[in-house]
Amino acid sequence: MASPKRLQGLIAATITPMTPDGEINLSVIDQYVDYLVKEQGVKSIFVNGTTGEGLSLSTQERKQLAEAWVTKGKDKLDHVIIHVGALSLPEAKELAKHAAAIGASAIAGIAPFFLKPTNKDTLVAFLREVASEAPGVPFYYYHIPSLTGVKIRVEELLDGIKEQIPTFQGVKFSDTDLLDFAQCVKNNKEQFALLYGVDEQLLSALVLGASGAVGSTYNYLGKENNLMLEAFAKQDLTAAKQYQLCTGEFLSFVFKLGFGVAQTKAIMTSVSRIPMGPPRLPLLNASKDFIEKAKAKLDRLTCC
Amino acid sequence: MASPKRLQGLIAATITPMTPDGEINLSVIDQYVDYLVKEQGVKSIFVNGTTGEGLSLSTQERKQLAEAWVTKGKDKLDHVIIHVGALSLPEAKELAKHAAAIGASAIAGIAPFFLKPTNKDTLVAFLREVASEAPGVPFYYYHIPSLTGVKIRVEELLDGIKEQIPTFQGVKFSDTDLLDFAQCVKNNKEQFALLYGVDEQLLSALVLGASGAVGSTYNYLGKENNLMLEAFAKQDLTAAKQYQLCTGEFLSFVFKLGFGVAQTKAIMTSVSRIPMGPPRLPLLNASKDFIEKAKAKLDRLTCC
Amino acid sequence: MASPKRLQGLIAATITPMTPDGEINLSVIDQYVDYLVKEQGVKSIFVNGTTGEGLSLSTQERKQLAEAWVTKGKDKLDHVIIHVGALSLPEAKELAKHAAAIGASAIAGIAPFFLKPTNKDTLVAFLREVASEAPGVPFYYYHIPSLTGVKIRVEELLDGIKEQIPTFQGVKFSDTDLLDFAQCVKNNKEQFALLYGVDEQLLSALVLGASGAVGSTYNYLGKENNLMLEAFAKQDLTAAKQYQLCTGEFLSFVFKLGFGVAQTKAIMTSVSRIPMGPPRLPLLNASKDFIEKAKAKLDRLTCC
Amino acid sequence: MASPKRLQGLIAATITPMTPDGEINLSVIDQYVDYLVKEQGVKSIFVNGTTGEGLSLSTQERKQLAEAWVTKGKDKLDHVIIHVGALSLPEAKELAKHAAAIGASAIAGIAPFFLKPTNKDTLVAFLREVASEAPGVPFYYYHIPSLTGVKIRVEELLDGIKEQIPTFQGVKFSDTDLLDFAQCVKNNKEQFALLYGVDEQLLSALVLGASGAVGSTYNYLGKENNLMLEAFAKQDLTAAKQYQLCTGEFLSFVFKLGFGVAQTKAIMTSVSRIPMGPPRLPLLNASKDFIEKAKAKLDRLTCC
Repeated sequence: MASPKRLQGLIAATITPMTPDGEINLSVIDQYVDYLVKEQGVKSIFVNGTTGEGLSLSTQERKQLAEAWVTKGKDKLDHVIIHVGALSLPEAKELAKHAAAIGASAIAGIAPFFLKPTNKDTLVAFLREVASEAPGVPFYYYHIPSLTGVKIRVEELLDGIKEQIPTFQGVKFSDTDLLDFAQCVKNNKEQFALLYGVDEQLLSALVLGASGAVGSTYNYLGKENNLMLEAFAKQDLTAAKQYQLCTGEFLSFVFKLGFGVAQTKAIMTSVSRIPMGPPRLPLLNASKDFIEKAKAKLDRLTCC
Repeated sequence: MASPKRLQGLIAATITPMTPDGEINLSVIDQYVDYLVKEQGVKSIFVNGTTGEGLSLSTQERKQLAEAWVTKGKDKLDHVIIHVGALSLPEAKELAKHAAAIGASAIAGIAPFFLKPTNKDTLVAFLREVASEAPGVPFYYYHIPSLTGVKIRVEELLDGIKEQIPTFQGVKFSDTDLLDFAQCVKNNKEQFALLYGVDEQLLSALVLGASGAVGSTYNYLGKENNLMLEAFAKQDLTAAKQYQLCTGEFLSFVFKLGFGVAQTKAIMTSVSRIPMGPPRLPLLNASKDFIEKAKAKLDRLTCC
Repeated sequence: MASPKRLQGLIAATITPMTPDGEINLSVIDQYVDYLVKEQGVKSIFVNGTTGEGLSLSTQERKQLAEAWVTKGKDKLDHVIIHVGALSLPEAKELAKHAAAIGASAIAGIAPFFLKPTNKDTLVAFLREVASEAPGVPFYYYHIPSLTGVKIRVEELLDGIKEQIPTFQGVKFSDTDLLDFAQCVKNNKEQFALLYGVDEQLLSALVLGASGAVGSTYNYLGKENNLMLEAFAKQDLTAAKQYQLCTGEFLSFVFKLGFGVAQTKAIMTSVSRIPMGPPRLPLLNASKDFIEKAKAKLDRLTCC
Repeated sequence: MASPKRLQGLIAATITPMTPDGEINLSVIDQYVDYLVKEQGVKSIFVNGTTGEGLSLSTQERKQLAEAWVTKGKDKLDHVIIHVGALSLPEAKELAKHAAAIGASAIAGIAPFFLKPTNKDTLVAFLREVASEAPGVPFYYYHIPSLTGVKIRVEELLDGIKEQIPTFQGVKFSDTDLLDFAQCVKNNKEQFALLYGVDEQLLSALVLGASGAVGSTYNYLGKENNLMLEAFAKQDLTAAKQYQLCTGEFLSFVFKLGFGVAQTKAIMTSVSRIPMGPPRLPLLNASKDFIEKAKAKLDRLTCC
C-alpha cells in the first residue's frame, strides 16, 4: 500500500460508520473513500483516532476497520495511517503488528494517558515497543495533550528519536503551543512530517512550516481547506486568510452549541449523505436542533 | 463465591504481580492472599483497578488475573471485586460477563475517560450496559475524578440509580469532595456501600459515615488501618486520630519523593517479601533511592 | 483589644455591608456584631477576607471597615482578625501597620496570586514583610489554593516559620487536602491555631485535630455549627454527624443553584434582616429566584 | 499626547525600574525611552502591566510611573498606554482618571480575577465603570486568561461593546486561542486594534490579521521583531518565518530554564545596560546562572 509520495496536504481523521444498533458498519467504507477523494479532494486518512472513536472500539473491531480502509483505499488513496495506540501496551503492539500485516501506509500512537509517562524517556520507551512490531512501517506520534494530559514537549521528544525508533517519521501535533511546533520545524533535520491537528488554526501552523494537517473537519470541509493550502502555496495571504476565517466561522458557531465527535458524525451524515450511524456510548447522538443549526450554517457559508 | 457478609471494612486494591520480563505472574497470588489475610487482616480485595494496572493489561490478562484471584481467594477471602471498566464498552461488557461466569463477588466500573460522558444519564447508560452482562452480581461505580476528569457528582448519580441498574450496590469514592460524600450518606435509603478511596484521609470519611475503604495502602498498612477502624468503632477518637496521623506521616513522606503505582509495587515487594516484579510501561521501576528511603521510613513508623 | 483567650471555635468571615449605591455601610456593623453574638453564638470574626470582598475594596475602605469592626466589637467579641493581604506588598504593609494601630486582635495574609511565589521561601519572605509591620500582633496565613493557585503545602510552610515570623500564630486552612492538614496537626509543637476553612466538611477536620473554623456560613448557620462543636467535644459522633449532614444539605442545595459571595450576602440579609446591600462589581446581586429558593430551603432545615 | 497615528506595530510592555532596595526608580526612564526608540525601533509602550509588576505596586507608585512615562515619552513615543486595571474597582477608576489627567494616549484594563465576572455582561459592566472615568481616552481590554482565569471569549466581548463603552478601541489578546482571535478579525467592523500578546507566536496571529503586538520581549528583541513585521508586510514569508523561529529559539531556551517577569528584568538590564534593579516580592532576582546562560544564548542568536 505504501505510496512513494511524501505525507503532506490534508489527511482526514476518519469517522467510524456504525449501524443503527451500534455495530461497526464496514459496508459504507467504499463509498466513504470515494466521497473523500472526489468530493473533498482528500487522498490520505487517519483511521481509528479520536474522531473514529478508536478507543471506544474493541481490538477486534479496530482490526476489521483497519483492514477495510486499507482494502477499499487501495489505488484510490495515497496514505492510510492506522492509529494503533492503546492504554495497554500488549494491545497496542498487537494492533501495530496487524497494521503491518495488512499493508498500512503508516501507523500512529497516542501517549498512554491513564497511568502516564512522566518523562520523555518513558514515553519513547512505550512508543518504541509499539513501533518495533511494525519494523517496515513509518511511525507517527499522536500528540494531543488536552485529551491525554501528557505534556511532554514535542521538540524534546524529537531530539534523538530516530536512534530510538528507526521508523519514526513524524507527528500529528494537536495542540495550540505553536512555540513548541515552531522549534520542531527549526530543528527538523530528519525531515519529519509535522502535521498540524488543530483545524481551526491551521494557517497559523502553515506559516511556521507545517507539512500538512490531520483533522476531522477535512471530512466535510476538505475542499475549502485545499483551496487555503493552494492560496498559501502561492503566497496569496489575503485569500488564505479568507478561507481560514470562513471555516473558522463555522467551527466557532458549532463550538458554542457544544461540539465533539458525536456532532462531527452527524454533520458528516448530513453533508455526505453517507449514513454514519450513531456514536457509541459514552457518546450520544447529536440533537436534532444541533444538526439543523449546523447544517443551516454550513449551507450559508461562502468560503469559495 | 459471594459471601453473605455485607461489604465493609478494608478492601485492598491489589497490585498485579509480574515476572521480571513483564508478564503477569499468577504463581504468587496464593501467597499474596495469605499475606493479606494473615499479616494485614484484610479479607476483601479490588482486582484490576488503578493500583493493579488494570488498564495497562490486555483483556485476556485481566480475565486470567480475575480467575486466579477468585480461585485462590475461595474460602479465604470475604469479597473479590473485579474491576471490569474499560474505555471500550464491548470490552467492559466482555469482562463483566466473564467475572460473573467465574463467580466474582462483585464487579466495578470506572467512567470512560477519553471520550467522556457529559452528564449523569450518559454515564448511567454506559454503566448499565456493563452491569447488565452480570445480572446476578453486585455492581459498584468507581469514582475517581482526579484521574478520569469525569466530575459528575456521586450524590446525583445515586439518585434513582437502582431503577436503572438493579444490581447497583455502592461506590468506590476516590475523591476529596467530602460534601458530595456526606450527601450520599444522608440520602442513602438503599443502603449502598459507600467505600472511601483516599486512604490518607479515611478517618475524615468515617466520621461522615463511610461503610468501608478501598485503597492501595491496605496492602501493607492494613493492620494499622484496621486498628484505626476498631478505635473508631469504639468512639476512641484520640486513638483513631493517632493512627490516621501516623499512616499519614508515611504517605506525606513518600508523596514528596514522588509516589504512584510503581512505588506502591516496590514497597509491597519490600514489605511482604512477595516478588511483585516491575510495573509495565508507561511506568518504570521505582528508584533504589526511593525504595530505601520509603522502607527506612516504614521501619521507623510506630503507629501501633 | 487582644483577648487572653486562645483563638478557637467558630470565626465568622464577615460580609461587608454596602449601601444601595455600592459604598461601604458602616452604620449596620454595630447591629451585625450583636446579631453574631446573640443569635449565632459567634464571638470571633475575620474581616476583609474573601467573603468580605476585601480585595474589591480600596485600601482606604479596608481601613475604615477594620476600624469599625474593632470599635464596635470592643467588649463584645473575643477576636477581631483583620485580613491585610494584598497583591501589592506596600499596600499589605500599610494595612498591617494600620491594624496594629487600631488594636486588632490579629492579622492575616493571603499569598499574592497574580505574580506568584514559586517556593516556600519566597512566600515566607513576602508574609514576613507584612507581619513585621505589626510586631505585637499575632499573624495568620490565609491558605486558599483553589483561589490563589499557590499550592505550597502548609506542612512545609510551618516548618521553621516561627524563626522567620515571630508573631506567626496559625493558619486559615481553606483547602480539601486533609493529609496536609493532618501533618500540620502532627507536627504542631508550637501550638499554632489550625483553623479549618471549608465549612461543608468541618467535622472531617475536627476529627483530625482542627482548633477551630473560619467561614462564611457561620454568619447564618453559627448556631448549628456550635451544636456540632459541642457534640464533637462530648464525643457524641452520631449527633455531630447529623449536624454536619444537615448544614451540608443546605450547602449542597445552593451550590447546585450557583453559590458565591454575592449569594452569601443575599442570604445573610434575608436571615438576619440586617441590610447587607448589593455586592460590588465584578459581582452582581443574587437573583430573586436564588434568594427565594435558598430561604425556603433554610426554613425547612431542621438540624436542631 | 494622543498621537494621530493608529495603534499598530510593536508595543513594548515596560519593565518597572527599581532601586536596589526595591523602590521604583524613575530616574532611568528617560534613558529607557531613548533605548526603545533608538536601539529597538519601538515607539509605543504599555505601562504597569504584567511585565511592569503593575499589580505589585501601590496606587501611588502606579501614578508616579504613569506620569514619568508620559512625560519622558513626549515627542519621542507614538503611544503610551497606561494599564489601570485592579481588583478593586475604586482603585481602577482612580487610576483611569489620573491617566486621563496626565494625558496618556490610551488606557487598558484587565478583568478582575480574584472574585471573577461570570459572564460577559458583568465583565463589560466592570470595564465600563473604569473606562468612563477617562471619557476622552481610548480604552483597551487586556485579555490574559492563563493568568486571570477569566475565559470569556473576546469575540463575544466585542459584540456590541461600542454601545456600552464608547471609548473602546481594542484588545491586548494574550492567549493561544487563535480561533477566537480570528473571529475577532472577521467581525471587526469597528476597526478595533487587535494586538497580539503571545510574543513567541506572533507570526501566527499576523497571518490571521493582527494589527500589532504588545509584549515583554519587544524590550530587547524589538529589532528582530520589526524585521519580521517588515518581511511579513512584503509577503516575504520565508524571511518572516526565519525571524519567528529565531526569536522562538531564544524563548524556548529560557522557558526551559524557568522564565518570568524577574528573568525578563534581568535580561533587560544585561542587554540594555540600563539598571532595572531587582523585582519586588513575591518575585526574586533571577539567578546568576540564568542570566549568564540567557545572555550567552542571546549573543549567539543570529536572526538578522
